[in-house]
Amino acid sequence: MSKLTKRADNYSEWYNQLVEKADLAEHSAVRGCMVIKPHGFAIWENMQSQLDKMFKSTGHQNAYFPIFIPKSFFSKEAKHVEGFAKECAVVTHYRLRTTADGKGVEVDPTAKLEEELIVRPTSEAIIWNSFKGWIQSYRNLPILINQWANVVRWEMRTRLFLRTAEFLWQEGHTAHATRDEAVIEAEKMLDVYTEFAEKYMAIPVIKGVKTPTERFAGALETYCIESLMQDGKALQCGTSHFLGQNFAKAFDVQFTDKTGKLDYVWATSWGVSTRLMGALIMTHSDDAGMVIPPKLAPIQVAIVPIYRKIEQLEEISKVALKLKSELEAKGIRVIFDDDDNRKPGWKFAEYEMKGVPVRIAIGPRDLENGTCEIARRDELSKEIVPFDTAVEKVAGLMDEIQDNLFAKALKFREENTFYIDNWKDFEKNIKAQKGFVYAHWDGTEETEEKIKQFTKATIRCIPLNGKQEEGKCILTGKPSKGRVVFAKAY
Amino acid sequence: MSKLTKRADNYSEWYNQLVEKADLAEHSAVRGCMVIKPHGFAIWENMQSQLDKMFKSTGHQNAYFPIFIPKSFFSKEAKHVEGFAKECAVVTHYRLRTTADGKGVEVDPTAKLEEELIVRPTSEAIIWNSFKGWIQSYRNLPILINQWANVVRWEMRTRLFLRTAEFLWQEGHTAHATRDEAVIEAEKMLDVYTEFAEKYMAIPVIKGVKTPTERFAGALETYCIESLMQDGKALQCGTSHFLGQNFAKAFDVQFTDKTGKLDYVWATSWGVSTRLMGALIMTHSDDAGMVIPPKLAPIQVAIVPIYRKIEQLEEISKVALKLKSELEAKGIRVIFDDDDNRKPGWKFAEYEMKGVPVRIAIGPRDLENGTCEIARRDELSKEIVPFDTAVEKVAGLMDEIQDNLFAKALKFREENTFYIDNWKDFEKNIKAQKGFVYAHWDGTEETEEKIKQFTKATIRCIPLNGKQEEGKCILTGKPSKGRVVFAKAY
Repeated sequence: MSKLTKRADNYSEWYNQLVEKADLAEHSAVRGCMVIKPHGFAIWENMQSQLDKMFKSTGHQNAYFPIFIPKSFFSKEAKHVEGFAKECAVVTHYRLRTTADGKGVEVDPTAKLEEELIVRPTSEAIIWNSFKGWIQSYRNLPILINQWANVVRWEMRTRLFLRTAEFLWQEGHTAHATRDEAVIEAEKMLDVYTEFAEKYMAIPVIKGVKTPTERFAGALETYCIESLMQDGKALQCGTSHFLGQNFAKAFDVQFTDKTGKLDYVWATSWGVSTRLMGALIMTHSDDAGMVIPPKLAPIQVAIVPIYRKIEQLEEISKVALKLKSELEAKGIRVIFDDDDNRKPGWKFAEYEMKGVPVRIAIGPRDLENGTCEIARRDELSKEIVPFDTAVEKVAGLMDEIQDNLFAKALKFREENTFYIDNWKDFEKNIKAQKGFVYAHWDGTEETEEKIKQFTKATIRCIPLNGKQEEGKCILTGKPSKGRVVFAKAY
Repeated sequence: MSKLTKRADNYSEWYNQLVEKADLAEHSAVRGCMVIKPHGFAIWENMQSQLDKMFKSTGHQNAYFPIFIPKSFFSKEAKHVEGFAKECAVVTHYRLRTTADGKGVEVDPTAKLEEELIVRPTSEAIIWNSFKGWIQSYRNLPILINQWANVVRWEMRTRLFLRTAEFLWQEGHTAHATRDEAVIEAEKMLDVYTEFAEKYMAIPVIKGVKTPTERFAGALETYCIESLMQDGKALQCGTSHFLGQNFAKAFDVQFTDKTGKLDYVWATSWGVSTRLMGALIMTHSDDAGMVIPPKLAPIQVAIVPIYRKIEQLEEISKVALKLKSELEAKGIRVIFDDDDNRKPGWKFAEYEMKGVPVRIAIGPRDLENGTCEIARRDELSKEIVPFDTAVEKVAGLMDEIQDNLFAKALKFREENTFYIDNWKDFEKNIKAQKGFVYAHWDGTEETEEKIKQFTKATIRCIPLNGKQEEGKCILTGKPSKGRVVFAKAY
């Protein structure tokens, strides 16, 4: 397997190569649409499965809504249409016919839809149209729904996982009797995302709210979590929206409260997508390939036998299979790779590229000495350990590697977070793409836009738990009450 | 909750009402597309989760391929295009724009795709186009892939779960070095489906192969499992296709075998869909609502407190929560429904309609007597049992109900399976829609088509494990070597 371009040489090229070589994803024949390959999909499945548990334990149920949305639905919520309806896949016909020469197919012009259908870019519209039939009284509330689905947003410039025309995601959609309850829900789901990012993905995140210009189309408040990639750019890892009564009004969803009064329903929506795969890669991986936190690794331990003669393999297999079953008894996901078509060196490179957290090698000398070699993917380090301590050692490594990855990512973020109070340093810092900059902002859209034009930095968020701090706007010098987080972003 | 139409009065109406009232699914604003509601989706999730385990334990990995397929791909496999490309959702544009009056949106005519994209009706074409890049030598084989996805086939007359424009399914796609290996794979997956249908869905099935006219478009052999619904119509529960080298040839996928010779790759594909929800409903449910086999029930046991005063509820709760946790310790999914807004009678009706296998009621008198009332959904029977035997009793009921549902369905099928040797009885039987008819057929397409025209019956399958038996074709009197299975079908 040929080596990756080094991150220091060309980060973007390194990313592209890694995604393909680690068997995570590839481009398809359809412009902008990716194929998620088995290894990449297995990581996504682990993420899904953990998130799904967390959604269910917070009272949510899964459901499924149509992939198509009638065009007219988009016009119902004024801001929503601005934000979404433009870059969409539009279905106009429902039949093909054989061409005159009999060799191909063409669109049948007689099978034109009366109203065009949009392939969902997000499902607020179609879901709130259904909620209308589900909600009459406070007794029907809250409704706490999640959907795992594919969505399509037409993109001109695409990158695997980070920006694709079709991607996979989950979208939560909830309906509540009161404003407070909806706000609490939106914040609760931000906490769920934070816990998931930090404990499972080992990615430290900043919790915050978006500025009005960066809000979701149709939201009154957009909560978000922001993380820092190795190249100093920010990546948004998840958003949770307080939608107020906007969609209830657009789709006329009212309920009778306990006092018999009619009111519009309050809403939230929240989502994370396969973009998180990009965050995972750009937080932990290195020049040797993918690094996966143990909690999300499809294979946590790969055991590779080192042998020349087949009799040696037989001896090694006995020991290796015992080790495998002992590790599995502790809930660890293990493979014993005795494929005789591949050399150990090839296997080592393969597991390194794919990010398997722990590799164990067992050779004839190990059998003699009662030892094995344990290699950590996160530190690319090796250690010979007595065989009878191997299970305990490896079990411990699962937590140790998980914690180490988080600690390294946190340290990196701290080293690349700056508090800046003058424009010159701000510009220099952003230009060098050094990470997060906490700076004062006068709170106006105009200034936000100017800073973006001058530096390409955007306000990633107004941090929750941010300190009250009097200051002056980095650009205009006007008064500010607290710092916001700037960065260039994916 | 109003009652359902009785099955004997109008089976089709009963089905439609049940699907909506049991909170399984409903029609959406998009013609032909359904909303799968939380309870229906939870059953589907249990089905998915079990199937996914079975696929993985037979060596398959999940992956994800684009929802769009370039139009030209459909022309590459000649039979495939005949079977599928006609009734498809066609994406022709990728942008909307605001209308001149500023009030709505319309398709932007300048954003027309060079080549139209088809929303996948099945993914052979796009997947084999990817496999081309994955396969060079025998070392890359077999490839054993499964995808969970939504697909769209434009349908004019739709019914929830049974026939919808969009539905959810899994589609397996495998690539092999030899013909034999591919045939074995196709048959293995039929066995997986059979085991799933019988052990989890409690639906007895007939394994067979389709006649050439009923084969999947592009297959050399289509294996299927067929089940019998309560109204005497058959429903196909799953298919597994041996595709030969057709797709490999269409997409030019060759590999070098161990001797260095170049050959086309052998293929299978296999799938089951949300249609299985229809089979589940029409096999087990009754005039009181849904009946779910315990293995697939989202809630297996509902505990309902019977009380007048709130102090009584407190006493009952103690006992109920202990029971709940003891049942959960045995891996049983339980809810304790202490919602004070709903009366016990309402709850009973609700759990009956939704098909919860076991309901336990606990009232003040039960507390005095140390008993509870256990009701079985499958038999609509009740029994008072001493409290200290309740856990064991309920645990036993899980298997007992599962087995009973299968036994009842099998008995029904046996009572509605006929061996017929003359045309008059055949016609009469099919007209009365009495079930499966095993009859002789001369093996010609022509006869198959005539029988269909005369009676609306189709050959559901040529049974595997069918007896060798000389006979005469039911219609033409020409010689036949074995019986095939006829029925009207969904």
